[in-house]
Amino acid sequence: VANRQILISRRPSGRLAADDFAHVAGPMPEPAVGDVVCRTILLSIDPANRAWMQGRTYRDQLGTGEVMAGFTISEVIDSNGTALPTGTLVAGEAGWQEYAALPTSSLHVVEPIGPVTHELNVLGITGLTAYFGLLAVGRPRAGETVLVSAAAGATGNVVGQLARIHGCRVVGIAGSDHKNSLLTDELEFDAAVNHRSERFDDELRRACPDGVDVYFDNVGGSVLERSLRLLREGGRVVFCGAVAHYDGDDRTGGITFHPGRMVVRRLRLEGFLVSDFMSEWAAARTAIAGWIADGSLRVLEDVVDGLDAAPNALVGLLAGDNVGKRIVRVGRDR
Amino acid sequence: VANRQILISRRPSGRLAADDFAHVAGPMPEPAVGDVVCRTILLSIDPANRAWMQGRTYRDQLGTGEVMAGFTISEVIDSNGTALPTGTLVAGEAGWQEYAALPTSSLHVVEPIGPVTHELNVLGITGLTAYFGLLAVGRPRAGETVLVSAAAGATGNVVGQLARIHGCRVVGIAGSDHKNSLLTDELEFDAAVNHRSERFDDELRRACPDGVDVYFDNVGGSVLERSLRLLREGGRVVFCGAVAHYDGDDRTGGITFHPGRMVVRRLRLEGFLVSDFMSEWAAARTAIAGWIADGSLRVLEDVVDGLDAAPNALVGLLAGDNVGKRIVRVGRDR
Repeated sequence: VANRQILISRRPSGRLAADDFAHVAGPMPEPAVGDVVCRTILLSIDPANRAWMQGRTYRDQLGTGEVMAGFTISEVIDSNGTALPTGTLVAGEAGWQEYAALPTSSLHVVEPIGPVTHELNVLGITGLTAYFGLLAVGRPRAGETVLVSAAAGATGNVVGQLARIHGCRVVGIAGSDHKNSLLTDELEFDAAVNHRSERFDDELRRACPDGVDVYFDNVGGSVLERSLRLLREGGRVVFCGAVAHYDGDDRTGGITFHPGRMVVRRLRLEGFLVSDFMSEWAAARTAIAGWIADGSLRVLEDVVDGLDAAPNALVGLLAGDNVGKRIVRVGRDR
Repeated sequence: VANRQILISRRPSGRLAADDFAHVAGPMPEPAVGDVVCRTILLSIDPANRAWMQGRTYRDQLGTGEVMAGFTISEVIDSNGTALPTGTLVAGEAGWQEYAALPTSSLHVVEPIGPVTHELNVLGITGLTAYFGLLAVGRPRAGETVLVSAAAGATGNVVGQLARIHGCRVVGIAGSDHKNSLLTDELEFDAAVNHRSERFDDELRRACPDGVDVYFDNVGGSVLERSLRLLREGGRVVFCGAVAHYDGDDRTGGITFHPGRMVVRRLRLEGFLVSDFMSEWAAARTAIAGWIADGSLRVLEDVVDGLDAAPNALVGLLAGDNVGKRIVRVGRDR
């Protein structure tokens, strides 16, 4: 049996391209002591994947010749003497390949509440990122205005819906009128603004007539710069990602910011990683599942078939062509 | 009796100059209902004074022809039927003049713990700003590295000493070798760096070999930009003031900042005003007085005599020629 894998074949120059990857038939993995062998079912496609290729983040930069990294849901097919039985469903980081040997300490056992895809989406890292970023870092109060960028994306749409559930006025920023109609018509955002519009500045101000209390930033760049100007006294910015800076050669791409305003308006700007809140994940999953069950949280998914689709799925995600969580189905369910 | 006053005679162009002010003999103030008449004893000279002239901050911009604004300690000389007896010592904002009519609601009764000057310094807004900014916003833990700019200034020297009292490694940034010797030799900072040195970048890195956990920013500008790069994972920046941006025409003067780093390093950047913590001021004063009494907190004061000295006192402060809290003695003590 071969193990289909997708490797990074060269360091991207400028924007990522599908031919920065190579599709190969690799060997079946050999588990070390403490590893299990996993068969990949679902692969998560995330903006962070591109950041990992660009330079050191909270992990080492990915290198040429490596299997491309990514979060996955897999089935244990060889427990290799560990406590994880064959057939267990696990979340981890198998990367872009059909089979992987992974240490059990790096895996979370998944007990799906609904469809397995939700475990990579609203009930997985994506939804938990929205939940803790908005509620624990942004801490919005009912009646406040919450602004979120990449609002039709995997994290952004959940952030907006959670803010609405918590009684906030919700304004989304997305890159097409089609996405914005979805946000206001189907997800009940109060307003949505297209950052590609020539009158973006005016439209954003009009959508936030009282200013912004919490801005949930998924993009960085000029959208962040403009949003900073709209912050009210006591305003907060949640830094979740900076996708505007990922898909190119200049990973540092700074924005301009005014320290005097930090004092005068008592602003708080804070970055976070969802792993900081691991002890509260179970309770958050229960809460999110409740909102799905009672209809207040709609799940948006964009599932693509087959491992070979992964490169174009990521290239397209970085261009903003997804709505909701993009997932590649690599193998059949258990 | 005339009331000597110093007015803003023209809007400063570029750097503040002493002849942007006019010295006049004004009328004695006429108290309205609810006002008391106050005689100024001490006038606080603060970088924020310059920011108030530059544009709108948390208050309206000061205008030409107005009495220059400033924090003061005064004696009530006419209680005008209010509950504040003649002879009461009050902290408030009489501005740059000998006498002022002020609403009692804008005044705090002062019960001096030590010398009255301390009530504008470590036991007044200056010390409370250091206390709450460092401890409530920065929240340093013992063993962490605390970096503070304008470290020989009124707020900065207290921040550094409070950080040392709380078991932190303390690094100061100041603008002369003389100030830096004072910080290390007399205030027991662990290191001090001169931001005017040609090798400032290297010296700052060497002074913070493990990076920075809390940076207390009094200056903004390029010192802030460089300090941001040294922040460790979980690092915090306390925004207290941005004096590098105050003394000129470009009040917004932005700095460059990297949103991706906010996420990867889970940084928190937060501005504050000491008035946000008013309910805790009394407890803080007691704590600070205790550290003065046991010798762990040294009080640095720079008292100038006579109201007429105020313009040059502020111009000089903005050029960094003070050590510790600059105060103008306007009138005799009670």
